[in-house]
Order: sequence, then structure tokens, then C-alpha cells
Amino acid sequence: MIECYINTSLEICEDRDTKGLYKKARAGSIKGFTGIDSPYQPPLNPECIVESGTDSIATCVAKVVKVLEGKNIIPAVISVPVIELFVKPDEKAAKIAEAAGLPKLEMSKLSMQWFQILSEGWATPLKGFMREDEFLQSLHFNCVFDHGTHNQSIPITLDLTTEQKDKLSGSKAICLTYLGKDYAIMRNPEFYIHRKEERCARTWGVYTKNHPHIQMIYEQGDWLAGGELEVLHRVEWGDGLDKYRKTPLELRAKFEEMGADAVFVFQLRNPVHNGHALLMTDTAKKLKERGYKKPVLLLHPLGGWTKADDVPLEWRMKQHDAVLDEKVLDPEATVVAIWPSPMSYAGPTEVQWHAKARLVTGAQFYIVGRDPAGMGHPDKKEDLYDHSHGRRVLSMAPGMNQFEIIPFKVAAYNKTKGAMDFYDPANHDNFEFISGTRMRKTAREGGALPEGFMAPKAWKVLQAYYASLQ
Amino acid sequence: MIECYINTSLEICEDRDTKGLYKKARAGSIKGFTGIDSPYQPPLNPECIVESGTDSIATCVAKVVKVLEGKNIIPAVISVPVIELFVKPDEKAAKIAEAAGLPKLEMSKLSMQWFQILSEGWATPLKGFMREDEFLQSLHFNCVFDHGTHNQSIPITLDLTTEQKDKLSGSKAICLTYLGKDYAIMRNPEFYIHRKEERCARTWGVYTKNHPHIQMIYEQGDWLAGGELEVLHRVEWGDGLDKYRKTPLELRAKFEEMGADAVFVFQLRNPVHNGHALLMTDTAKKLKERGYKKPVLLLHPLGGWTKADDVPLEWRMKQHDAVLDEKVLDPEATVVAIWPSPMSYAGPTEVQWHAKARLVTGAQFYIVGRDPAGMGHPDKKEDLYDHSHGRRVLSMAPGMNQFEIIPFKVAAYNKTKGAMDFYDPANHDNFEFISGTRMRKTAREGGALPEGFMAPKAWKVLQAYYASLQ
Repeated sequence: MIECYINTSLEICEDRDTKGLYKKARAGSIKGFTGIDSPYQPPLNPECIVESGTDSIATCVAKVVKVLEGKNIIPAVISVPVIELFVKPDEKAAKIAEAAGLPKLEMSKLSMQWFQILSEGWATPLKGFMREDEFLQSLHFNCVFDHGTHNQSIPITLDLTTEQKDKLSGSKAICLTYLGKDYAIMRNPEFYIHRKEERCARTWGVYTKNHPHIQMIYEQGDWLAGGELEVLHRVEWGDGLDKYRKTPLELRAKFEEMGADAVFVFQLRNPVHNGHALLMTDTAKKLKERGYKKPVLLLHPLGGWTKADDVPLEWRMKQHDAVLDEKVLDPEATVVAIWPSPMSYAGPTEVQWHAKARLVTGAQFYIVGRDPAGMGHPDKKEDLYDHSHGRRVLSMAPGMNQFEIIPFKVAAYNKTKGAMDFYDPANHDNFEFISGTRMRKTAREGGALPEGFMAPKAWKVLQAYYASLQ
Repeated sequence: MIECYINTSLEICEDRDTKGLYKKARAGSIKGFTGIDSPYQPPLNPECIVESGTDSIATCVAKVVKVLEGKNIIPAVISVPVIELFVKPDEKAAKIAEAAGLPKLEMSKLSMQWFQILSEGWATPLKGFMREDEFLQSLHFNCVFDHGTHNQSIPITLDLTTEQKDKLSGSKAICLTYLGKDYAIMRNPEFYIHRKEERCARTWGVYTKNHPHIQMIYEQGDWLAGGELEVLHRVEWGDGLDKYRKTPLELRAKFEEMGADAVFVFQLRNPVHNGHALLMTDTAKKLKERGYKKPVLLLHPLGGWTKADDVPLEWRMKQHDAVLDEKVLDPEATVVAIWPSPMSYAGPTEVQWHAKARLVTGAQFYIVGRDPAGMGHPDKKEDLYDHSHGRRVLSMAPGMNQFEIIPFKVAAYNKTKGAMDFYDPANHDNFEFISGTRMRKTAREGGALPEGFMAPKAWKVLQAYYASLQ
């Protein structure tokens, strides 16, 4: 038996009582009515507390479902379909031959990263670069509507110049290339104006050309091309890291092979310190307490474009490997893979994309940080986004019901324990906050941070990276 | 019998055929299968064409439902509830007494216009000025989520200064006043930072302080107060026009009294010319052809704040009266009422608000113009929004299913007919486009426009207005 405590007031119950049961109970024609002539006995240790007075019905239902899933009473495995855009093997030769004869459009490196995202199905149900209707849906509703509501907060677009557009206009199909190689056929391409000012204002909630991703948008062509893709080849970057670039279907297979009955995702674009590790091991522990036998962590660093002062992917991967080598994270219950998306630094808008794209891996839990996908305001001495908005917007975002969002607990260095620990404001003086700025400065100077902040081998990788810059 | 033509390709049908029926038909194990061994006979005069190859399921369903409603096979009457925020008559005296003792917050004129909107139920299900969660939902999703998805593209907020916030913090309830008069109790007020840059960028898709509404936002206080309202008094402006300011419930009663079986809305903030009138009479005619006996027009000019160079409300109302006087519109099938919302000039974002707010009147049809709620870009020589985006965004917007959106057909002066007429590109030379700029210039100079452009009495009102400016 599960005890569920519905936290609401008598007033609200009466308010919603369309059948007039409370009226009847008050009049005495229903006897033993809870709250009227029978006292309400709240459960002492409810397993589920539903705030029906303040939360929406959807949230209340989600809470109950989550508890039932957590106890394995109903299966928590999610079946979001993955729509890969690769051509069928038996059609490949013919499509390659067709593509060779089509007018060509060369993609930039950034477009190619988005192309990989689309082709492997991370942006399901998108079947290609956005047409204008999808672009408008994304900008206005952070969703696309295709047999339902699918979260898609970041537009995925292909830019081209006016000259290119004029040349390709009227083509029934075009061939997308990268470094001269044919990669896909785009059928019935739709060309529409790249409204950069409106796009940047709506996606980033700011208007400046000094933001590093906005700067790239402004350097793009003045037109966008949308249309369904038939992808001829899987994207490989040949940088020695392709083995980490697993598609959603490959990840699903991996989780099944490992016998995972719960998968939780940790998205990051920074080195892993022991505060992150604490949160991940704590999540695994909590899931086990909820009855899962084999919770698996998907440690899923972002692999696409990042701004110049972030640690580059190859160094981050070395650092993550060192963390696993030292068993700070359990190698038997962790999958490290690269997620090929570029970074947008768009805060509450982008965190939705970070979560949504992981739905297709079959994961059920997503850890959300403080100020996710945030950065400093390019023009002011303050952060670009409110630190709480990302978590709040994500928890309210449509098309994300399958995920249980796990809020990031702040960890700091506990001087009395000599280890990273969840911050406890009651013992503030025991804690030392080690900022990213201090970490970078110390690593650059070859210095040391308190033992227990980061696995020693992983810290050496970081030092080596900063030394390589000099 | 209704003939419905599902316009899709065999390819798409096969693609969606999860049961493999087509495969079986091809193999010959199902005989007489349409499209395989039996020819498809498209209906010659289908009453409904469903583009299932391109439209979403929701759109397809909506099309079928609209046809059934249009033929009165299923009832088209909509029952969006109206949530008025007025206190119950028997509680009014006690609440007035309570309000008198509460800390006060004086509303600006703009806030007071939004207060009227909230109190009369136009923004149902909002129960007061937005709390931060609702504000975030509106900015990111153009919706609020409260037992379902409700369109709310424009945030409805109450601003206050840091000084006022510091004074009111900790109050369990505050009293909202206007010109010193107590108007409402706000319970459990929530104070949150007024992130003006982010708000303006997300709502207007532009970042400039030269836009007339954005300018007002920047002049507002740096905090927002959200919370449920108990409204003590109905808002009246005492300008002789209050009789036109009908609440949603009053409008519903009026439509019922008139025996309306269909209501279509025309929102405007400008004088009515015969091109508008043509569209309205044409809509009524079409609705009659679809089987409605008594379609009623809600001519619903916006009554709140407008920018300085728009024609003021009092002159627009005189002009609309003259149009009805001259029977350009049928007085027996028209309700003229003022909608108390301020204007935001936010294009595709705002047109959703214009439509959504009319849902509570029980109307089923909404006429959308070209470039609705648009204006010139404050900093560039171009229009702020793409002219087609408003209509397209509105037709895709969540929480608007009850409305059939009627796109504005362009009307121009047909020189051969001597009247306004729907523009026909094949006979371009017969048409003369009379721009707003030319209309204003001519009216200002006391000149004449081609006969048939506007009802003569209505034109005289406009001339008188412009004369009054000099």
C-alpha cells in the first residue's frame, strides 16, 4: 500500500465539488464525510505528497506516477521513438548517385554539428532543418507540433547567403555537402528570410552582438533553408573521439546490455570535480533506495561548438577518463559518451534542449544545475540569466513529462571532512567555495587545490591543458 | 452525408501503415485495396479537404470538426469559462473594510487597464497579476498552465519600485488603489525582479528602447508584484464611453438576447473603412451559407493605451457610430463594444492575446489581419514583423483550438466599380491602394478620397479629428 497525502484545503475541495457532495454532507444527507462530520487523519509518513491546492493536475498526476514508477509498480521505461534520418541500406547506392547530380549547398562546421544532431535523431520528431513554420513554433512556443507537442526550444536551422539562395531557388532537391563531400539530399527545400534580430532576441532574451553564439548567427547568411533530409553518411570527425559519439539507438542498446533499469543524465561542458561526482553518486544511491537495481549514469559531455574560454572537448574527455580511472565514479554503472550538439549559452531556453535531446536515449532522470547554460552578461557586470530560472522553466516546459528533473544540490569543499560535501547553510563556516575562476587560475599556475576537490589524475590533466596554452 | 477528401500520397499512407496492410495488399492477400488493385476515386465536390500529408493531426481534426459545426451537425457553441475576480456581493462590505486597513499600492493608469482586463475575466484563468512562474510561462511558452494549456502571450504584470517593494515585503495582503481609491485586495503577494531587458527581448523579439510600449516598460519600477485579486469595484473611466465597456459575461448575454448562433470578432485600433466593412459583411454572408441563421459581428475596438499617432478612442468610437448609422454594417447583427486592453504593438506575440481574450465572449470566429499588431521598426526603415507571421503564429498557437481563424483578404479601391473590393491580382490595374498615410494626410488637409472608400459621415468624423489637432 502506498500512502499519498493530498495537501489541499477544504475550501478548494468544496470549490471543485461539481456534484455538490459537500453541500449534501453539510446538510447531513451524507454521513461520515471527511472534513465535515468525520475528522481528516493525515498519514504520518506519506510516500507521496500532492499539492493539489497549488500544483496543476498534470504536476499532481506526474508526482503520483513517479512514486509508482520509483517502486516499480508501473514500468518507468520510456519509449520515446527515435527518428534517424539515414537512408535505408538498400536505397543508399541510388541516393548517392542521385545526390551527385543535384545542386550543392556546402554546410559550415556549425551547421554540420546540427546536421549530426538531426541525422541521429536527437531532435526527434524533426525530419530535417526547420521549415519556417517549425522555426516560428520554436521561437514562440519553444516547441514543435507534429502529432503532439514536442519540446524544441532552440531552432535548428541551415543558413545560406542570398547568392546561394538565388542559385538554388526552384530546385526540387538539393545536396548538402561538408568539405566537399555529399552528405544528404534535402527534398523540396523552403527558403525563408533569416530574421536574425528577432531570432536572437526571442531565443536569448537579450539583444547584443557581443554574445559569442549570437555573434555567429550574425555572421551567418541572410536566408535559411528548411526541408526533410535523406542522410547518406553518418558524421565522423576523425579526431580520435568518434568512438564516444554514440547515437541514441546505440546508447539504448548499451543500457540494455548493462541491464540498466534506470538511466540518469548528467550534461556538462566543464571538467568534472568531486562536487559533481558527489551529486551523481548520491543520485544513484537514492535511485537504489527507491527500488532500482541497476541505475546507470549517462555522463554526457557536450561535443559541439563551445566558446573560446571553455576547456576544449579533447581535454575534457581526458579529464573524464581520469575521473573514471580513479573510480570516483563507478565505471561499471557509468556510460561516457559525447553529445554532438553545439552550445548556445541560452540559459532557461537552452536547458530545455539539453534535457529534451536526452529523452531519446530512454533516460528517465535528468540532473539540472544551478544557472544551467548560463554565462556572464556580455555587456553588464552580472550574469545573463537568473540562476533559478533554468530549473523552473525546465520543470514547467511542455513535452518533457517523461523526465523526472533532479535539481542540483550545491556542493562545496567541507574543510572539516577534507572532501566535497553538500552545502549546509547551518554550518557555513565549515565550507569553502571554489569558483571556476579560482580553479582555472590555480591550474594555470600549476598550483594545488584542497585535496578532495578533484581526483589527482584528473587535476593533472587540467594543469597540462592550461600549461599547453602558454 | 458529408464528403471529405483526405489529400495525401500513397507513400505517406504506406509510411504510416503500422499494420502492414499495404504490404499484404501488394502481396495480393487483401483484394480490392484502394490505391493498389482498386483505383482511388476522389470526390468531385468534397465539403472538406484534409491535407493529412502536410497538416498535423490536430489541424486535420479541427478541419473536420469545423465542417460539422458549420453544418450544425455538432454544436459550435463554446463554453470557455469566464473567471471574474469580483468579490461576492455578500462579502463586499467586509472586504472593503479589510482593504481600508491594509498597506496600499497605487497602480499606474497602464496597470489599471490591465487590472480591468483581469477583473472582468478576459485573461481567464489568471486570477490576478502574474506570479513569477506564470511570467516565465508566458515569456517562454506564450501560455500559462493551470489545469491545461491556456494561451497567454503577453505578460500581465504589476510593477513597483524597490522602495515600495521594501515597504510591502512581508505583508500577507495588500490593497491596490487607483487615484487613491481602494480597488482590490492582493493576497500573499510575491515580489520578483522585473527583468526588463529579458522581458522586452522575449515579448517583442527586438531590443530597443525606442519602441513606444517598451519605453513604458523601461519607465516602470524594477520589481513586479504577483498574486490573486479580490476586486472590490468594477473599473469605470467616466469618459462617457463606459456604456461600451461590456464585460465578457455581458457580451454573452447580449449575443443570447440577439439570438446569435455564431459570433465573429473584428479587433481593431483604427477607423473602419469600407474595405474592413466588406470583409465583415462577406464573413457574415459566408457563415450564412454554411447554415448559420444569425451570425453576429462583435466590432471590438481596443480601448486601452495606444501610441500617440493612433486615432484616440473617443474619435474612433464616433467614427464607428457613423459607420453603423450609415448602415455600412448591419446594426441588427452588430455589437460595438470596447475591449479594455492596452496595445503592445508586439505583432505575432500580441495577436495571440487579441484572439485569446475574445474566447471568453463565446465567439467562434476571429478575423486576423495582415501584419496584426504590427508597426514600423523603431530603428530601421522596415516593418517590425513579417506581415504573414501574425496569421501563421496565431493559426499554430496552443490554447486557441476553439477559434476558427479567418484570414484577412486584402481589399483595395476598385476604380471600375467605384467601391472597395477584394483585390484581384489578375486585374491589378483596376485597383488603387489607399495607404493609412495617404488617408491621414488627406483627412488632415480636409481633402476627399474616392467615393466608396469610407462612409461619408465617418469620413467627416476623421476630418474633424485631424482638424482638432491643428
